[in-house]
Amino acid sequence: MSIDFVYIFGLLATAAFAASGVLAALGQRIDLFGAVVVAVVTAVGGGTLRDLILGVPVFWLFDQAWLLVAVVTGGIAFFIRRHLDRHGDALAYLDAMGVALVAAGALQKCSELGLPGLHGVALGVITGIGGGLIRDTLTNRDTLLVSPELYATPIIFGLTLQYLVHQWVGMSSVTALFFGGVIIFILRALAIRFDLRMPSYMVNQ
Amino acid sequence: MSIDFVYIFGLLATAAFAASGVLAALGQRIDLFGAVVVAVVTAVGGGTLRDLILGVPVFWLFDQAWLLVAVVTGGIAFFIRRHLDRHGDALAYLDAMGVALVAAGALQKCSELGLPGLHGVALGVITGIGGGLIRDTLTNRDTLLVSPELYATPIIFGLTLQYLVHQWVGMSSVTALFFGGVIIFILRALAIRFDLRMPSYMVNQ
Amino acid sequence: MSIDFVYIFGLLATAAFAASGVLAALGQRIDLFGAVVVAVVTAVGGGTLRDLILGVPVFWLFDQAWLLVAVVTGGIAFFIRRHLDRHGDALAYLDAMGVALVAAGALQKCSELGLPGLHGVALGVITGIGGGLIRDTLTNRDTLLVSPELYATPIIFGLTLQYLVHQWVGMSSVTALFFGGVIIFILRALAIRFDLRMPSYMVNQ
Repeated sequence: MSIDFVYIFGLLATAAFAASGVLAALGQRIDLFGAVVVAVVTAVGGGTLRDLILGVPVFWLFDQAWLLVAVVTGGIAFFIRRHLDRHGDALAYLDAMGVALVAAGALQKCSELGLPGLHGVALGVITGIGGGLIRDTLTNRDTLLVSPELYATPIIFGLTLQYLVHQWVGMSSVTALFFGGVIIFILRALAIRFDLRMPSYMVNQ
Repeated sequence: MSIDFVYIFGLLATAAFAASGVLAALGQRIDLFGAVVVAVVTAVGGGTLRDLILGVPVFWLFDQAWLLVAVVTGGIAFFIRRHLDRHGDALAYLDAMGVALVAAGALQKCSELGLPGLHGVALGVITGIGGGLIRDTLTNRDTLLVSPELYATPIIFGLTLQYLVHQWVGMSSVTALFFGGVIIFILRALAIRFDLRMPSYMVNQ
Repeated sequence: MSIDFVYIFGLLATAAFAASGVLAALGQRIDLFGAVVVAVVTAVGGGTLRDLILGVPVFWLFDQAWLLVAVVTGGIAFFIRRHLDRHGDALAYLDAMGVALVAAGALQKCSELGLPGLHGVALGVITGIGGGLIRDTLTNRDTLLVSPELYATPIIFGLTLQYLVHQWVGMSSVTALFFGGVIIFILRALAIRFDLRMPSYMVNQ
């Protein structure tokens, strides 16, 4: 049963990243198929990076569900783009959902493999921001990481909590994944909504 | 015998991408060695991505021909750059040739490995645009994917046809590779020459 | 004993790249954790690319020292950023140190694996510039490669010398690594300091 939750979280992250890819491409003129390509690359980019670094088979290669979810979500997002885009921060929120689930999922995979916490957090961050980095590069946008708003902090904080409740409190790795993902998403959403920033001595200005 | 054709198509794609890398770098001041580095990275980038994702050894690591073709083509392209650059769309046509051959080659490799069509098409697209993405990032250019012109569409259409004539019509995978590559290149070349676009309801504007 | 030197060179490259990542991020507003993420990705990016291409386990996955050095150096660099940044070329020099050690280290690893010289030089260049490419993309900067200043040339020249003194003169691969790294760094530092360029017929302008 537990494996199903990880799978469902992963598919949700895929859908969120796919939609974020379409929104990112709207800054410039693009057609349906171009938008779907951006959606797919964004959706599978982070997890592909994770699997390559871990040296395990790439997750989407032997299961059609991932590509199907990315293609279908990307296509739908393209046709309802005006509706999605009406909320100015839709891209940021969808990115936040994708990042939260991908980062927490990567840490959970590292825990299963017995890697130390530092590696799990680092890999979580790298794969969490990897998909968005590829998306922003493909669509000629500035990356979200370099901004005064909280971006890396929610990920690092949430992953550290997720690691601690799994290793020290004894929560199962799947429950901890859900917990970590929710923490990351809520913190990031608060940062977007209220423009939260670090104390000024921790910000370069 | 059949394996030779795949190899030759691959070397042609390498040369085309290498030359496109040099042309992409001309937007800014760059010297011979810098241009050759861009050429090599562009030439082997897409196929490297393909092999990493498939989990097979990287193609150029055990055969010097690939790097030699990339280095020599890159060097020649640098010295005849004024001639190449005279035709304003030379970069786009060379990119189209590289993309067509790399994408069709990736699909053929996936077919040989028994992967389903959706994966073959996705991997074909990803590796087809991968080399160009690295090239455009290295040379600080906007990527070709996000433009109103047809870019992803010819690749997806050609790869789908290539898959169908191989799986359903029974054409050999190598003949289908040639067929798919030619379709992609012709469609893309028509798009460049006549500024073809998708019907307006399929374009974000 | 010899293995220790390679390890120490690698940690030095990691620290230099981590600091360069923080400096690169200062062009825009960024907070401590964002800067540390850029530092870590820059520091391990090139070597990760090298290991993926070579098909060997990623170096930082089974040894915490790499991430620790990157995190700590990144954090320190953030707090002393005004001091580091006072010297306008600090980023270029730190990048030069990282590139020199990573490139020379990659060639040494290829030699140990028995790969031909062309592959060692190519892989040295790719992994040498890989970390900086990811850094510049993450921080929305133009890449260092495409500039009129000598960038690729010192790397290619130093790596070629390193290969020759190892294969032809019989210097040990570790001494040759030190030799190659120093040559690359000195040439690159001279290029930065004195704005060295290639003869004009070798520069596109």
